[in-house]
Amino acid sequence: MHDALPSASRDLDLDGDTLREECGVFGIFGHPDAAAITALGLHALQHRGQEAAGIVTFDGARFHAERKLGLVGDSFSSREVIERLTGANAIGHVRYSTTGETVMRNVQPLFAELDAGGFAVAHNGNLTNGLTLRRELIREGAICQSTTDTEVILHLLARSRKPRIVERFLDAIRALEGAFALVCLSNKKLIGARDPYGIRPLVIGELDGRYILASETCALDIIGARFVRDVENGEVVVITEGGIESLRPFPAVPERPCVFEYIYFARPDSIVNGKSVYEARKNLGAQLAAESPAEVDVVVPVPDSGVPAAIGYAQAACVPFEMGIIRNHYVGRTFIQPTQSVRELGVRMKHSANRGVIAGKRIVLIDDSLVRGTTSVKIVRMMREAGAKEVHFRIASPPIKHPDFYGIDTPEREKLLAATHDLEAMRAYIGADSLAFLSIDGLYRALGFAGRNAERPQFTDHCFTGEYPTGLTDLGIETPKRLSILAEAD
Amino acid sequence: MHDALPSASRDLDLDGDTLREECGVFGIFGHPDAAAITALGLHALQHRGQEAAGIVTFDGARFHAERKLGLVGDSFSSREVIERLTGANAIGHVRYSTTGETVMRNVQPLFAELDAGGFAVAHNGNLTNGLTLRRELIREGAICQSTTDTEVILHLLARSRKPRIVERFLDAIRALEGAFALVCLSNKKLIGARDPYGIRPLVIGELDGRYILASETCALDIIGARFVRDVENGEVVVITEGGIESLRPFPAVPERPCVFEYIYFARPDSIVNGKSVYEARKNLGAQLAAESPAEVDVVVPVPDSGVPAAIGYAQAACVPFEMGIIRNHYVGRTFIQPTQSVRELGVRMKHSANRGVIAGKRIVLIDDSLVRGTTSVKIVRMMREAGAKEVHFRIASPPIKHPDFYGIDTPEREKLLAATHDLEAMRAYIGADSLAFLSIDGLYRALGFAGRNAERPQFTDHCFTGEYPTGLTDLGIETPKRLSILAEAD
Amino acid sequence: MHDALPSASRDLDLDGDTLREECGVFGIFGHPDAAAITALGLHALQHRGQEAAGIVTFDGARFHAERKLGLVGDSFSSREVIERLTGANAIGHVRYSTTGETVMRNVQPLFAELDAGGFAVAHNGNLTNGLTLRRELIREGAICQSTTDTEVILHLLARSRKPRIVERFLDAIRALEGAFALVCLSNKKLIGARDPYGIRPLVIGELDGRYILASETCALDIIGARFVRDVENGEVVVITEGGIESLRPFPAVPERPCVFEYIYFARPDSIVNGKSVYEARKNLGAQLAAESPAEVDVVVPVPDSGVPAAIGYAQAACVPFEMGIIRNHYVGRTFIQPTQSVRELGVRMKHSANRGVIAGKRIVLIDDSLVRGTTSVKIVRMMREAGAKEVHFRIASPPIKHPDFYGIDTPEREKLLAATHDLEAMRAYIGADSLAFLSIDGLYRALGFAGRNAERPQFTDHCFTGEYPTGLTDLGIETPKRLSILAEAD
Amino acid sequence: MHDALPSASRDLDLDGDTLREECGVFGIFGHPDAAAITALGLHALQHRGQEAAGIVTFDGARFHAERKLGLVGDSFSSREVIERLTGANAIGHVRYSTTGETVMRNVQPLFAELDAGGFAVAHNGNLTNGLTLRRELIREGAICQSTTDTEVILHLLARSRKPRIVERFLDAIRALEGAFALVCLSNKKLIGARDPYGIRPLVIGELDGRYILASETCALDIIGARFVRDVENGEVVVITEGGIESLRPFPAVPERPCVFEYIYFARPDSIVNGKSVYEARKNLGAQLAAESPAEVDVVVPVPDSGVPAAIGYAQAACVPFEMGIIRNHYVGRTFIQPTQSVRELGVRMKHSANRGVIAGKRIVLIDDSLVRGTTSVKIVRMMREAGAKEVHFRIASPPIKHPDFYGIDTPEREKLLAATHDLEAMRAYIGADSLAFLSIDGLYRALGFAGRNAERPQFTDHCFTGEYPTGLTDLGIETPKRLSILAEAD
Repeated sequence: MHDALPSASRDLDLDGDTLREECGVFGIFGHPDAAAITALGLHALQHRGQEAAGIVTFDGARFHAERKLGLVGDSFSSREVIERLTGANAIGHVRYSTTGETVMRNVQPLFAELDAGGFAVAHNGNLTNGLTLRRELIREGAICQSTTDTEVILHLLARSRKPRIVERFLDAIRALEGAFALVCLSNKKLIGARDPYGIRPLVIGELDGRYILASETCALDIIGARFVRDVENGEVVVITEGGIESLRPFPAVPERPCVFEYIYFARPDSIVNGKSVYEARKNLGAQLAAESPAEVDVVVPVPDSGVPAAIGYAQAACVPFEMGIIRNHYVGRTFIQPTQSVRELGVRMKHSANRGVIAGKRIVLIDDSLVRGTTSVKIVRMMREAGAKEVHFRIASPPIKHPDFYGIDTPEREKLLAATHDLEAMRAYIGADSLAFLSIDGLYRALGFAGRNAERPQFTDHCFTGEYPTGLTDLGIETPKRLSILAEAD
Repeated sequence: MHDALPSASRDLDLDGDTLREECGVFGIFGHPDAAAITALGLHALQHRGQEAAGIVTFDGARFHAERKLGLVGDSFSSREVIERLTGANAIGHVRYSTTGETVMRNVQPLFAELDAGGFAVAHNGNLTNGLTLRRELIREGAICQSTTDTEVILHLLARSRKPRIVERFLDAIRALEGAFALVCLSNKKLIGARDPYGIRPLVIGELDGRYILASETCALDIIGARFVRDVENGEVVVITEGGIESLRPFPAVPERPCVFEYIYFARPDSIVNGKSVYEARKNLGAQLAAESPAEVDVVVPVPDSGVPAAIGYAQAACVPFEMGIIRNHYVGRTFIQPTQSVRELGVRMKHSANRGVIAGKRIVLIDDSLVRGTTSVKIVRMMREAGAKEVHFRIASPPIKHPDFYGIDTPEREKLLAATHDLEAMRAYIGADSLAFLSIDGLYRALGFAGRNAERPQFTDHCFTGEYPTGLTDLGIETPKRLSILAEAD
Repeated sequence: MHDALPSASRDLDLDGDTLREECGVFGIFGHPDAAAITALGLHALQHRGQEAAGIVTFDGARFHAERKLGLVGDSFSSREVIERLTGANAIGHVRYSTTGETVMRNVQPLFAELDAGGFAVAHNGNLTNGLTLRRELIREGAICQSTTDTEVILHLLARSRKPRIVERFLDAIRALEGAFALVCLSNKKLIGARDPYGIRPLVIGELDGRYILASETCALDIIGARFVRDVENGEVVVITEGGIESLRPFPAVPERPCVFEYIYFARPDSIVNGKSVYEARKNLGAQLAAESPAEVDVVVPVPDSGVPAAIGYAQAACVPFEMGIIRNHYVGRTFIQPTQSVRELGVRMKHSANRGVIAGKRIVLIDDSLVRGTTSVKIVRMMREAGAKEVHFRIASPPIKHPDFYGIDTPEREKLLAATHDLEAMRAYIGADSLAFLSIDGLYRALGFAGRNAERPQFTDHCFTGEYPTGLTDLGIETPKRLSILAEAD
Repeated sequence: MHDALPSASRDLDLDGDTLREECGVFGIFGHPDAAAITALGLHALQHRGQEAAGIVTFDGARFHAERKLGLVGDSFSSREVIERLTGANAIGHVRYSTTGETVMRNVQPLFAELDAGGFAVAHNGNLTNGLTLRRELIREGAICQSTTDTEVILHLLARSRKPRIVERFLDAIRALEGAFALVCLSNKKLIGARDPYGIRPLVIGELDGRYILASETCALDIIGARFVRDVENGEVVVITEGGIESLRPFPAVPERPCVFEYIYFARPDSIVNGKSVYEARKNLGAQLAAESPAEVDVVVPVPDSGVPAAIGYAQAACVPFEMGIIRNHYVGRTFIQPTQSVRELGVRMKHSANRGVIAGKRIVLIDDSLVRGTTSVKIVRMMREAGAKEVHFRIASPPIKHPDFYGIDTPEREKLLAATHDLEAMRAYIGADSLAFLSIDGLYRALGFAGRNAERPQFTDHCFTGEYPTGLTDLGIETPKRLSILAEAD
């Protein structure tokens, strides 16, 4: 279910000119500092979602929850908050809000008090039949309290007639279509699950003999935990005091992880499906240098996400790498420009030209991807105003022509620059002296393959190719009138 | 379901020495200022619940909600809040929290998005089979988001197989046992309902041709609305654009409204079931003067609730009425004493002796009822310290010996002074020179009857007599372990 | 200095139709619970000012301050706040804001770090040469941080060349003109002072051997302290560990306390200058009954301030006293009506008719004073709508024709109804069947004198007579342009 | 005046292991969007102070102020705040709090209402006779409301007997000793001033014909303003509607700007005293590579401040530059670790190892400076845990052996690692395989000089050399007992 409703998050993005991951998930079982460790893990996953964060713990008798809008470091840094979250088992979530407005009732983990005890769920991904399932459930008398697709998982679980919680969970996820990396907590178990294609990532770690689940390995590193292995595509892992058990509730299919984790989403120091993200990005840059060289004096990254590809490009091209654009990290994603006339100053809130490096030089700008192009326009203009002699633009991924339905917040198709412009038109729009994208086979080569396997693509790459690995059941369904109540001042 | 969990409200009551109503309800259909009028109506009903307030509106397409802890005047006085609550139909609620901790998720009106559209419910009263119903619903797969008994009404409605919303509502309320005055809002209807005995009050009003439902007539007076009639016991009224329709889903039984509305809860300027509350209280005082005269110089009310009975007593006894105790209204119910040594100052936070009226006099104190007696002890002591020569105490209702299960927050039985002490022991405990209560027949006489009809009591008077009009299904059921998550900082 | 700037407080008063005292002060020396006791004392004085409250303590090494907008019970009820206010010596203040906008920087007590140590001051009253002094001080290089007249006292103290703090304080107050009851705290002393005429009240109390200063005796009663005596007009009392010392820095003049303390401001249970306020008000009512009887069925007070006078009137006139108007105390002074159409509902937010008492009756309404008359208009109309046959209005004080400059917030002269209308015009405006005020000699008689001593009036009664006891130096001075910065989000 | 009081800011720094600038200043004269532009300028200067920010405007009649704790982007991004700051003239300030606790009353700009009108001042730097001046002023009757040294400037101004505001300002600053870059606003003028040595920077810009003052050129770039020139050392510039006037109130001395602006404080894209900061840092790295080469496989910066020097080092040494440490920017400076056991995880909150780049490699880490060394210890350990074969450490500045008194927040001398350890002891403490610092002459060479001029050092470099350019009058003076009151909830 891709939700087209306007959300607060879009206001925060000055131009709507980035892709955004919805979520990061984390869980730990049996550790005395479960809540504090979960807060740290979520902090390391903050790049996956900055709108809201939540933690649910279980202390042997009761579940406790804290769910807040804003950054983990702001919401979960105080002693009082962590002390309210008693218990040795915990799961947590950071989020953007593609489905459901960002109001407190949508902040995850979601929780239900079942017959058999409590059950909490944290979800990274997006269901492509969430709306359809929701309608069926409501028709059968379910009362939904959130507007997220995640809640249907709880209702499916509550309605399963199976006696044991794990069986009920398998009943529930078998009904799902789309992308899901789930971390769940029951009275006695920590459960992890990945959809049949393994679209969104999930790894298993270990700290002092206790198991951890996390979206990325960087969430293990922050706490000094050991990386054990990835949860595999289509796998369910059940962690109890007795150890870890692996279940395979789905028919086996080859994995097809989302290629955007390498291009943009995952943190550069993470290892995703066995590959270093930083090395992958450097390779994308090096491949791009081989495919589309430029006669320039300096290689300049669009910070921060373009830095690794730019280093790769510069090393491959033997051209100096320079920080020609300075990023103001204090802006966060929360600065709202005060007046209209000031709004026109635009991208300079976040980026500024490092004039000494740019003036009189031929430069090549390296960015990870191109979405709407609005930021690129401003950056090219800024480079020219800073005295660049030539401004070449290189994108370390192929043109994005199709929307995502698996948990990445893409603009509508008509706002994707590459969906409506050819290469020359894009170059002219951006104002660069030249523009080039990485080829689709170059993408696969940089990631260690001979090229894209057209029969069985090694990655989920629908944004470039339009090939979606799963059904898209909700696609024809009109977005529902929002009958649900709006939450009060959050 | 009487909830024994500690609640914030009890901390706010210095001594736990008052009875408290849980709720007031209000609704209006078809008025352009629906939300603002509902806020005013709730403000007039504030005496029925000060912990939280909520309003839900429907604007023809969407429902909007604002639910807040604190007073109506603080939460619903700003233009922005009222402007968010668009729509011509609205219901509202003020509450205490006998069932369910006071956290945002429990603040009413509660809302569900049903198959057929949204449905909001505001409830005054308490179900005596709420816990039992809740368990059955969870066993069948329902997910409860609040810990109130009111939520079961929504689930019953959602699960009804009937096609039309009113039929589903009737299905739901036929399953209920206990006391309920409900005001509900669907896409097209404003619905009011009173339990078969009419334990809690509910009236119909009219403003500029639009219908209103409210707990008391004082909520009509504040907006200049006309009183139409009481909703009758066991009646359901359905208000639509076409007018008002009356349904009778229960077998007919004689009404038996709660007598405490006259003694303490309702506002003195309200007309409850056709009787002026102020006049009723003056009659209770006059009857008390006839039954238990006192040789005194002045009659002193325990303010504010004892004032009308004291006026009645004074007029009947031909003794001067004087404000011998001054109440500090600024204390509200929110003052928390800062230190232990200060806490011992006790009742003086709220009441102080008006020395000039007391010193050297024989006085009779008039209070509306006696619960634990802790406040009475302090007040008698305060009177003596202020120089009273004699202090007589008269209570304008019979001794309270039994707990309530219909929406009044009574202490456990063993903390009710009259449940464990005889008259002389109570007098000695309080430290008065004499003590007298109104007789049970005197109570009925003051309210216009020849006496209590033992066969068919005209009022619900179980706190005095132990005779409960309904079954008490939940009574034997142990309070559940709270598996449900605690809400975050409210 | 009378400040004509709009202030938040006026918005809070629905009609600007009350008089308001600016302040209450409190201090205690040498008590382990100094801050908590001061909070309680201020709570008892809350009727003297509800906009802001502050406490300053000294712990032997440092001063600590907490100054907050809002009620004492909201700001000073938490353990943490009181625990931050360490030390055995404390002073406190509650305020309205006639001079200076209500922003944090104006909330008292004000504090200065002098050469000799810290000095804090809390002021009840108003200086009539505050603006003049302020200008001189600024001309000499003083930097004012507040916009209150009280700050000039600190600057005068700081600039005195005298070596000892008490001498510097006497230097400072000798320069003042107008009304002041001061409570001050230095490193070693608690100081109280009253202006030469004793316009505003100040009393000395004692608790467990420690001295207390307070605006009214009700602040002693709340903590069980003993009333010692009034600070006399023109007296300075200096409290140290060695006891209490009395100084007389001014030429002796007869006392002339403000008569409005009896009519309206002081709490009914206070003893002001040896007279019970409650008895005084009953006498005003009785005298009014003698001067201006009415042929009526019931006497109805305008609650709450009209209650004692109405009891006095009713007893003198042998007519039943009834609560014909019910006041909603939850409204506090903070309710802001949400929409224009709702605003027209006006006075009903606070008052409502008790129809059963009014309908078909001839009534006399008793109010303490008449300012603009706007509330009276609404109340008379409300009585008629409730069915009153005749509505007579009696005011238990003379007509207010002149503004105050001593700490009472009166409207400008042209908005005082009695300044611009004769009796019949006022009656017609209010819509009453008859209207009468207490005579000026009746006022003095009710307060125990044979009448007003025209040579040497026993009270400050300028609002009725236009005779101001002090110079009014600032009167001709134009209100300054506000160059001072506005405080940030309060 | 170096203030040894604990401040909130130190808690926010995990290890106290950075140097921190106190402040950034900004001003604009005659622009319709003065407040919004000032907010943007302060946002660009946010790296100079993150604890608090303030803006004062003048609208021709009144001054307006907003002063807030926290980031500019959080405090000054809303329309309402900017709209309250009316007027075409504005000054602003961002700050740390070396002098004075961080409470609202210390947040700049400070303001005084003088005889002649209002005057606001924003100060970057630190006075070395501030405490001495403060004592004299208090002795003469001044009342200080803040605990900052900046307030003495206002008092000196207020007490000057000169008739015109500029003359009074010159009187005031002639009394100062230490470092100051001031931006001030009077009714008619925007004034900038730099101390005789020009220790802290200040530049003049121009936007649409209106003059701007700012700490760094990056604050001009963000709004597209043109750089005009630096305010010179010892210069006062007075901006009015008539243009800009330059005054020279001090005896001429050669400039001696603080060398730390190049090493660490200024933003890399700023031009300070005519030199590009980014180029200067690259030169420091290149000079370091020449002086202290290392046999390594990769050059790794300690991000973010070590990045330019590392690029310079890598280019000079012809060794690949790699992002071997990933910085989590979300942590900001506000994350407080929740529990003790979690606290031991330390530096990983902010930095994590990029394992793929480190494992099996010989690396050289480049940092800008070494203060306490605690972060370096953790980073070296982190590199070893990530598999580095050798870890060499190079510091792109000389050893810091002396505290600063001019507005940089240095730890006490005994906590400066280089003040108490020789090179080998430092290496051993940090755990690196080798350690080297840039030489003092290398520092000057990298900045364009043949070496340090020992007679007349071209920079203020006391932290390395112990040579302070100004007197240090306050040095012997004991820090005062804090008699001043603590502010309430900020």
